[in-house]
Order: sequence, then C-alpha cells, then structure tokens
Amino acid sequence: MAKDIATRAENYPEWYNDLVLKAGLADYSAVKGCMVIKPYGYAIWENMRDVLDRRFKDTGHQNAAFPLLIPKSFFSREAQHVEGFAKECAVVTHYRLMNDPDGKGVVVDPTAKLEEELIIRPTSETIIWNTYKDWIQSYRDLPILINQWANVVRWEMRTRLFLRTTEFFWQEGHTAHATAEEAIAETEQMLDIYAEFMENFMAVPVIKGRKTESERFAGAVETYTVEGLMQDGKALQMGTSHFLGQNFAKAFNVQYLSRESKLEYVWATSWGVSTRMMGALVMVHGDDDGLIIPPRLAPYQVVIVPIFKNDEQLALITEKVNEIRKALQAQGIRVHYDARDNNSPGWKFNEYELKGVPVRIAIGPRDLEKGTVEVARRDTKTKEIWEMATLNDRVAPLLEEIQTSLYNRALKVREESSHYADDYARFKEIIANEGGFVYAHWDGTAETEAKIKEETKATIRCIPLDAPEEDGVCIYSGKPSKQRVIFAQAY
Amino acid sequence: MAKDIATRAENYPEWYNDLVLKAGLADYSAVKGCMVIKPYGYAIWENMRDVLDRRFKDTGHQNAAFPLLIPKSFFSREAQHVEGFAKECAVVTHYRLMNDPDGKGVVVDPTAKLEEELIIRPTSETIIWNTYKDWIQSYRDLPILINQWANVVRWEMRTRLFLRTTEFFWQEGHTAHATAEEAIAETEQMLDIYAEFMENFMAVPVIKGRKTESERFAGAVETYTVEGLMQDGKALQMGTSHFLGQNFAKAFNVQYLSRESKLEYVWATSWGVSTRMMGALVMVHGDDDGLIIPPRLAPYQVVIVPIFKNDEQLALITEKVNEIRKALQAQGIRVHYDARDNNSPGWKFNEYELKGVPVRIAIGPRDLEKGTVEVARRDTKTKEIWEMATLNDRVAPLLEEIQTSLYNRALKVREESSHYADDYARFKEIIANEGGFVYAHWDGTAETEAKIKEETKATIRCIPLDAPEEDGVCIYSGKPSKQRVIFAQAY
Repeated sequence: MAKDIATRAENYPEWYNDLVLKAGLADYSAVKGCMVIKPYGYAIWENMRDVLDRRFKDTGHQNAAFPLLIPKSFFSREAQHVEGFAKECAVVTHYRLMNDPDGKGVVVDPTAKLEEELIIRPTSETIIWNTYKDWIQSYRDLPILINQWANVVRWEMRTRLFLRTTEFFWQEGHTAHATAEEAIAETEQMLDIYAEFMENFMAVPVIKGRKTESERFAGAVETYTVEGLMQDGKALQMGTSHFLGQNFAKAFNVQYLSRESKLEYVWATSWGVSTRMMGALVMVHGDDDGLIIPPRLAPYQVVIVPIFKNDEQLALITEKVNEIRKALQAQGIRVHYDARDNNSPGWKFNEYELKGVPVRIAIGPRDLEKGTVEVARRDTKTKEIWEMATLNDRVAPLLEEIQTSLYNRALKVREESSHYADDYARFKEIIANEGGFVYAHWDGTAETEAKIKEETKATIRCIPLDAPEEDGVCIYSGKPSKQRVIFAQAY
Repeated sequence: MAKDIATRAENYPEWYNDLVLKAGLADYSAVKGCMVIKPYGYAIWENMRDVLDRRFKDTGHQNAAFPLLIPKSFFSREAQHVEGFAKECAVVTHYRLMNDPDGKGVVVDPTAKLEEELIIRPTSETIIWNTYKDWIQSYRDLPILINQWANVVRWEMRTRLFLRTTEFFWQEGHTAHATAEEAIAETEQMLDIYAEFMENFMAVPVIKGRKTESERFAGAVETYTVEGLMQDGKALQMGTSHFLGQNFAKAFNVQYLSRESKLEYVWATSWGVSTRMMGALVMVHGDDDGLIIPPRLAPYQVVIVPIFKNDEQLALITEKVNEIRKALQAQGIRVHYDARDNNSPGWKFNEYELKGVPVRIAIGPRDLEKGTVEVARRDTKTKEIWEMATLNDRVAPLLEEIQTSLYNRALKVREESSHYADDYARFKEIIANEGGFVYAHWDGTAETEAKIKEETKATIRCIPLDAPEEDGVCIYSGKPSKQRVIFAQAY
C-alpha cells in the first residue's frame, strides 16, 4: 500500500477517513463538525443529485427554496418534533458585530439582539407547513409536491466526514395531500425511488422497511427507511420517507375545503437523502487501494494515461488519444486525459486507483505501433490488452459490466453477512463477532428494543416490507411474534 | 388589468411586488427579510444556474462546498473585509434549546454557549482562504479554480423580494493564482461570462466597468461590475468580479513555493451573481399584464390551452396536442399543456400572461376541423392563425425572434435613458426627472462622489471599460477629467 492509507483489516474507521481525505472527497474545516466537500467529492454528489432530481421531477415534484432560519417558537408547535431536535439546534441570537471596545477584533454587538431567536433549520417541516398554511385553501390547491436541495445544521457531538456532520447537504421533499391514502402512496413511491437509485446507480443493495416507533422521525406517524450494509458489518440508514399524518397540519392549522365543502386537515409526507450517501459509497465499494466509484456516478468513468519519455512521444500519443476521447465522449462516456508531465505514469495509476476511476486506459509508443491499449478495471484490478479499434465498441459494455459486478459483489457481501438468530445467546454472539444484519423475532415492545440496544448496541434497523409472516418467539422476552425484524449495529 | 396588479405608471415598486408574488416567483416568509422562492421562480433560477454552471465548468472551474458557518475571528483578519460586513452578520451563539422551565415552549439553553461565536457566511472569502492555506504549497497546486452555489445571509434593514433579502442564493467563485496577471485575466474572463449570459439569456443589455474605490467589494483591489438599467430608470448591479490582489493571501498567510523556489503570496479573485438577477428579469421585461420571461430561461416556452365545451371535444383536442407536443419536445422546446377543467380558457390566458410564458397556442374544435391553431406572442401581445402543420418549423424560430426582440427592446429603453451631462444643473435635472444612466465627467475623488450621492442619491455605477478617453471637467468640482463615468440612482 504505497498510498499511506490504513487497510480495512487493520483499522476500518481510519481506512474510511484516509479514503475520504486522500482521494479528495472532503476535508475538515475550521468549524468543528463542519466539512469542506472538495471538487471530486462534490462532482459525485452532483451526479447523485442530478439523477434523483430527474426522478423527482418525472413524478411531478417541483423544487423550491424555503428560509434557512426558523423562528424558535415554530419548533414548539409539534410536541414530538421539538423533543427530537431541540438538543441539536444552532441558535442565532444577534445580527451585528462591532469593533471590540477593548482593542482589536470584533465582538457581538449586545444592542443587536433578536427579539425571538432563530434556529438554523435542522429540517424544514415547521417553516414549510407554516408557509403551506397560506397556500392551501381548497382541494384544488392539493396536492403540493415540493422538494428542496438544501443545507441543514444539527449540532452533533461526535462527527464523522459525510456520515455525521454538523452541517450537511440533502434534499427534503414536503408534500401535502387531501387524503391519507394519497400521502401514504407518496411516501412509498419516494422510498421506491430511493431504493431504485441506490441499487441501480450507487450499486448498493438496500432493504426497504418500516422503522419501529422509537426510531421514527420526530413528528412522523410512520417512517420508512432504506438500509444498507457496510463492509464492516454495520448498517447505514441510507434514506427515509415519512408519513406525517395530520400532525403538522394540526400544529400549523392547515385545513382545506373539500369537494364536499367540508373543512379538513391536510395529510403530509416528507422524505430525504443526504451527503451521508457519499459515506455509503466509500464504505460499500472501497478496497485497500482506495475508492471504487460505480460507473454511473463516476465523475470520470475512464482515465487515459499516456506513457512517454519525451515531448514527441507525448504529441503522437495525444493525437491518437484525442480521437479516442472524442469518439467515447460522443457516446456520453466521461473521459479524462491526464497528460501532466510532472507526475510519472506509476504515480498516476496509484492516484486514479485511489480515486476509484472505473476504467484506466494506458497508451505508450509501442501501443501506437501495434494499435493496442492497456485497459485496467478498477474493481477487479485486472488488465487486458485491447485492439485500439475496439475501444469504441467495448468501453460502454465494460462500464455496464463493472456497474453490475459492483452491485453483485455488494449483494454477496450482504448475503454472507445476513444471519438468522432464534435465541438471544446466538444473537449476541453474531452481533459481537460477525456483525451484519440479524433477522430475529421481537415482541414489538419499546422496552425489549431498548434492552437489546443497551446490551448489544444493536438496534432494529427496520421491519422489512417484503418479509413473510412467520410465527416465532421474541429472542429477548420469549413472547410471541409474527415477523422477523432486522437488527444490526449501525452508523 | 383584470389581474389586480398595479401598473408601472401608477406605482412601480408595487407593480414589481405584485408581479413577483402573483406570478408565483416568490413569497414572504415568517422570518423578516427572508423569502420563499416558489416553484415557478425556482425553475427560472435553475435555468440560470444550469447555463452559468456549464460556462464555469467549460472554463475549467469545479464546484465544491465550504461551511455555512465562519468563526468570528476570521472576519477580523482582513481589515476592510470586516469593516464591510460586520454590521450585517447573523451570529450563532448557542447550540442547544431546552424546555422552558417556566412552562411551555423552548428557550435557549444558557449552558450551551459557544466559546467562539459563529457567523453565518455573508460571503466566503475568509473560510475559503483559511482552507486554501492547507491546499497550496507549491506552484503545482495553482491555479485553484473553485465555485460554490450557496446561500448567504446579510442582515439587511430594508429588504425587497429578490433585490435585497436577508438570505439569498448565489454562486461565489474563489480562485487562487501564481501571478497577478493571471488573476486579473480570470477576473475579466468571469465578467465577460456574466455579461454574455445576461445579454444572450436574460436578454438584458449590460455595461461592463470598474467600480470606484468607495464602491469596491470590502477587501478587493479592483471590483468589476455589470450594470443593467431597469424600466424605471434605476440601475441594478447585476454581478461583480473582484481582483483581490494578495489581501486574503496575506491575511491567511497563504504562500507557495514558486518554480524558482521562492516563497510568494498567492493572488486571488472572487466573483458572484445572485438571485438578484431574478429581480432584473422582472423589472427589465415585465409589462402591466405581468412577467415576460425570455425564451431561453422560460420554464415553459410554450403553453397550449385547449378550448372545449365537453369531454369529447377535450379528448379530440388532447389527442392532437399530444402529437404537437411530442414533436416540439423532440426539438428541445419546453411545452406545457394545461387541460385543467376547473378554469376557463380566459382565466388561463390571463394566468400565462401573468407568468410571462413566451408563446401561447390555443386550439379549439374549429381549429381541429380547419387544421389551424391560434398563436399568441407574450412580448408583443399579437395573435396569428397558423396552419397546424407549420408549428414544427415555426415555433423554434419564433422563440428566437422573441428572445432577440426582448433584448433589442431593452437596449432601446436603455439608449433612450442614457444621457450626457456636462454641467451639474443639467445633471441634477436629469437625475430628478428622467432618471437613467448619466455619462458625466468626474474628478476621481471620493469627496466629490460622496457629495453628488448626498445631493442627488445618484452613485457612480461604474467607470465603463469601453469608454473612449475624452478631456473634460468634473461636473461638480470643475477639475479636469479624462473619461466619463456612469451615474445613476440604483437599487
């Protein structure tokens, strides 16, 4: 490992941080818990955003922007909501600085104190429902299908790049409906969109399920989740979709006149995925040599590295590369040509391995003579010599093959890390030694859930949507149960 | 004016607000000075963003994301910068709420006070240069060409939708260079990109120029600006591009080892345009019937309205419209078909006039028989009957014609509102009565500039880049001057 990164076996958390920092995804900042997303990381995030945004629009949603700041009193309107978020709110109390009367620098101007403090949004249900109140009068105004791409702030004590940061980026959809059925259908539709995106673009298999009451979003009637499994056997909640019932409509008094001229409360959903997905991408696919970015999200799908000893050779190679590149780009393939002369080919090979570029093509003077290129796959680290003339036919299928292969590999890891436990001793043994998802019976009580969490650090990731009914007994209490739920330690 | 909007002649500011609110661009929010950008407004902003983003990337820039919050002490590092922004900073002092011990609601937890207060970024030079310090060691690390699309907060006392809001959206480019020449070239390049975008997409003619010292960005060596003229004769600063010299490099101690192995301070630029441009779009093109959105930025370029008396008629029309729509969409034209049955065609005509959709096509049963449609232009409010079969050939050219025509109309207004003043009496008369741009000689001193501003509310919008040298005397002081500058009252 010439790249000075920890191996997964040695130190998984350190390996993760090394990849994020050294591959140029993100960096620490001067503000505790806030990160800088660097250009390479941001380019991946943009690709994620573009795919999701297209899906949101195709299902009738529109983007909008609501204020960053929320009056403090709004949080108290919905009892569970404030309970869930009050402890992690960044609070704006003043609106002006002044020169320090004692000398240098600036201090907060004590005369510029806000009458009511403002909270930097940790999520936007309250400010949005306070706005929807003005937008909704009649059934004709429904549904409202709005999404926003935004930054939010939750004051976290322990942070990790992408996985848990004080400021993070996400999209939050907030919809309003005339009926519960329609709102539930929306909640499920968005969960499906998330799952499809994660599996087909991120190449991360996910399990769709419902959260238990104690793991629900603060203010939700039902929280749906998509759960992924990382290589270290820990789960990651990849996205959530909430059926909010009429909780926010009641808290903000949002009623509409129905077709039957009755005044009814509106039904709500909200749903979001965040830059946390970047962490999953690293942890599901990366290896000890660096990132592996699935082709459909890779900023560069192909990198071309020239092998040359002098300017003449480089000029000849570049001429050929320009042809190749143009032809591949015409197919919509994202190609990067790295002809910098201050780094050796070996250094570049390492660099693009670290950055996880799916396909690397190397071309030297001998290749020009013979009409060949060397094609290396990042996922399998295999190399082949190809006829240059076949690139145009073979690169796109290769990228698709890598995409599929990454998904299958991740699915295999998940399957190998999925266990069934029928008694608590075995359950504890799996959680302590092997990790992964554990399918087990649970009696449905918050008490049992809390006890298991306390004793094993494993939480119920979800009650899977597609699980069969099955009679059993709770691994902890021995009480009867109708369905297995999925336990795991989680990020 | 059935739409219940003020006319420009009656009350220009009210007309502006009516258009923004009633056409669905934006709304007020519960937080003083912060707005909600509604879906229709946001769709225009997305189109602006996509065009600009493409141009930034084509000139080698990459997007990234830096923290929303900036340590207070960072502002004091650059003396002019803190002077410029200290008075309008939103300050985060606490990071937790708690239940109000006196009863209901939540209060700020006094024990959760930050050691150092954090400022919500009003602009990001300080946090970014503090980061660049870690990224730049050698000339090999330069240039850094980064942009971010972000929200910023400046605590404004008097706000107006889009034109001046407490929170606004913008892009801010921040680049680092090895030489002053390269940084100046970057500053000029970005100004050109802005001007090209504004003229070719917004259809707003702009004047490129330099700001006077007193109007410069806080911390800049030179500020370039693009200035537009609104229909009421007031100027609007549409975007700025700053050459920052080595000011921030020195403030944050950012040095690089040159090719000659000497330690040198880095040269900087920053440049930005914001949601303010939305205000210009409204004010330059709108008329007393509503918005007029230039086709290249219009979320819908064409709206099709069916004229029908019953479901059978609607079904027949819809069948035909689907063909038309498909053919137009295949050309990349953005088409909206409004077949809602709860609003009359007349209501829809009004609505899409208000929203400024460039082209409206109406189709009724008689049109089906005759193979015709009614095509209405929003800019000229003219209507024509076209053969249905010609739509495919004629719509795209019509959109281009509207685009050009809007630009020419705006240019004509600007030319008619551009004046030359050679003495102060005439100058005051123009500013007081006609408004517009006034080209006048100025002695180059901040004192004269301040006096003129105090007496007439007119400021120097810019020292135009392309103005000829011309001997003259300052309208105020009578001292010699070599070039006319442009004065105007401004937003």
